[in-house]
Amino acid sequence: MTVDAGGWPSDEDALTRRFAELAGAASPPIALGIGDDCAVLRPDSGEDLLWSIDSQEEEVDFRREWMTLEEIGARAAAAALSDLAGSGARPLAILLSLGSAAADPAEELLALFRGAARIARSCGAAVVGGDVTRRARGVGVTVAVLGSAPRGAVLLRRGARPGDGIWVTGSLGLAAAGLSLLRDRGRSAAEIADAPAVERFVRPAPRIAEALWLRERGAAHAMLDLSDGLARDLSRLCAASGVGAVLEAESVLEAAAAAGESGLQNALHGGEDLELLLSAGSQSIAAFVKSFTELFGVGLTRIGEIRSAPGLYLRRAGREAPLIPAGWDHVRAERAAAPARAGSGPADMALNPKGATCE
Amino acid sequence: MTVDAGGWPSDEDALTRRFAELAGAASPPIALGIGDDCAVLRPDSGEDLLWSIDSQEEEVDFRREWMTLEEIGARAAAAALSDLAGSGARPLAILLSLGSAAADPAEELLALFRGAARIARSCGAAVVGGDVTRRARGVGVTVAVLGSAPRGAVLLRRGARPGDGIWVTGSLGLAAAGLSLLRDRGRSAAEIADAPAVERFVRPAPRIAEALWLRERGAAHAMLDLSDGLARDLSRLCAASGVGAVLEAESVLEAAAAAGESGLQNALHGGEDLELLLSAGSQSIAAFVKSFTELFGVGLTRIGEIRSAPGLYLRRAGREAPLIPAGWDHVRAERAAAPARAGSGPADMALNPKGATCE
Repeated sequence: MTVDAGGWPSDEDALTRRFAELAGAASPPIALGIGDDCAVLRPDSGEDLLWSIDSQEEEVDFRREWMTLEEIGARAAAAALSDLAGSGARPLAILLSLGSAAADPAEELLALFRGAARIARSCGAAVVGGDVTRRARGVGVTVAVLGSAPRGAVLLRRGARPGDGIWVTGSLGLAAAGLSLLRDRGRSAAEIADAPAVERFVRPAPRIAEALWLRERGAAHAMLDLSDGLARDLSRLCAASGVGAVLEAESVLEAAAAAGESGLQNALHGGEDLELLLSAGSQSIAAFVKSFTELFGVGLTRIGEIRSAPGLYLRRAGREAPLIPAGWDHVRAERAAAPARAGSGPADMALNPKGATCE
Repeated sequence: MTVDAGGWPSDEDALTRRFAELAGAASPPIALGIGDDCAVLRPDSGEDLLWSIDSQEEEVDFRREWMTLEEIGARAAAAALSDLAGSGARPLAILLSLGSAAADPAEELLALFRGAARIARSCGAAVVGGDVTRRARGVGVTVAVLGSAPRGAVLLRRGARPGDGIWVTGSLGLAAAGLSLLRDRGRSAAEIADAPAVERFVRPAPRIAEALWLRERGAAHAMLDLSDGLARDLSRLCAASGVGAVLEAESVLEAAAAAGESGLQNALHGGEDLELLLSAGSQSIAAFVKSFTELFGVGLTRIGEIRSAPGLYLRRAGREAPLIPAGWDHVRAERAAAPARAGSGPADMALNPKGATCE
């Protein structure tokens, strides 16, 4: 980082040039990337554009001792891109707002940028602009994502129909298990003890390709990504669709990352797995399960059924009981139900934006 | 804010519904607003899309005792929308990421939302989604903006030509003067002493209509909005265009909010005015000045000239001297040149994202 001859481009401008180098040249549909007031996009006509934003805060969503700055940037981008996956959209571009409290923040900001750019690129999206902000404390990353889908083809939370099967991709509760390991034993110990769970918390991958594949086959009536836990996200899908649902505990355990009661609780209430939750006509999706699993090496499991009567229920050993989402509420600063994990954190971390957070 | 019957939509979901009510119904080109994983936009074909992001941080960009939460939300949205003005784009929609450290943040988040939604609406843009985040300290607002312009019509920083006149809208240095008043005397005293300057700092208005008008007349070769101070922003326009510039001190004083040396320094180095800076063929723009001023009640002043040799200069009383942008550098955490304002702040506020910040 040097100041140019003449002294008038400041080091902030030099950092912007470094960001632009890391981002690479713009190519369609990006007409202009980093370096002006705005990025310019020239999307295909006939496509709908999908747009979302997500923030990750130090001491709320993660702790620095668990993750490198590149991992923090990548995780923030993955969480935001997962919203595009939840809608069945193809990622086009991301914008980053990076905050740092360091006295000399250039290296911190570059590391956050590199991580976010890496995960964006792996999803087919370019970093086209951003903003750096001085903060009083910690680091923070906000990611705005833009994607596209053929007009009218977006999968929304609404659209689930009574009789639909409820399906999930991959393993549920893995990120929550990883968080528990990190909180209890620290990154270095946890890596040895249970690498896949820690990996899922630290380096989650949005199910972009899987979501596009599912959308293209037209099997799903409604879809979203699992960011706040299965119970809470399913309740949102049901509310938007005006339906209810029953989950089968045994089927949830098939999709759970671990067996037993804690595995079930993590699957129901753990957040940040970034898996897909979909409601689909059972006949139409059953034919796809084998090829989905072969193609992506990822499970696709039926865990319950949509029904017309409102309310969310869990059936265990033939008996149904109301299923109330656990985990921290983002707004109420208290648990919405009995804790799925032991212990509660200090007051300034009691209000969490996601189901699985660092309390 | 109540929990729905059955208990499963949490208060966070109730807050989202409140946001959706405040935002109002979606209408073209917004196909879907708040409430799903993503907003869905269906822009006109043949238009370029412009996309930018901007963050505002408590204790860095503002202090709570100077502004209400609604003003904080509005100011953040105005700063982000001003990037669209700088490109001559029509605002379509915004996304909000709102952070709060309050124990019971619903009212804080709603107030920030209301302020941002108000300024967005006044610019023709809808709030189509967002994200709420628990923070360890203070409030923060990040705004992503999306706008449109006819294909290829966007005004960029590049494009300025030797011989172009350099023009600015409105009054320069007003926000910096307002900041000084707020810092020295507090909001209540300052309001009595100098309302317009405080008003500009607290409630800036992006020059959207003015920018569209100027872009439609085709006079400008390059444009950007003044967010980091005239000297720094002009240096960016010159760097992007591969040219240099000379400013006339007497002309800058004509556009300055106050007379004398401090008025000149605020005009050159104060930030956050959200005025427009443009480079235009002098013949073509001169014919527009009268009608611009009549239509908008806002000045349009020629303050200097683009030339081919690189470097930024200020001509005073017939003599030229290099003009080095003052104010805090966002990255270096130190002044880039001699201070334009007296005093320096505590270390945790020394690194500022804009020229005029609360140090």
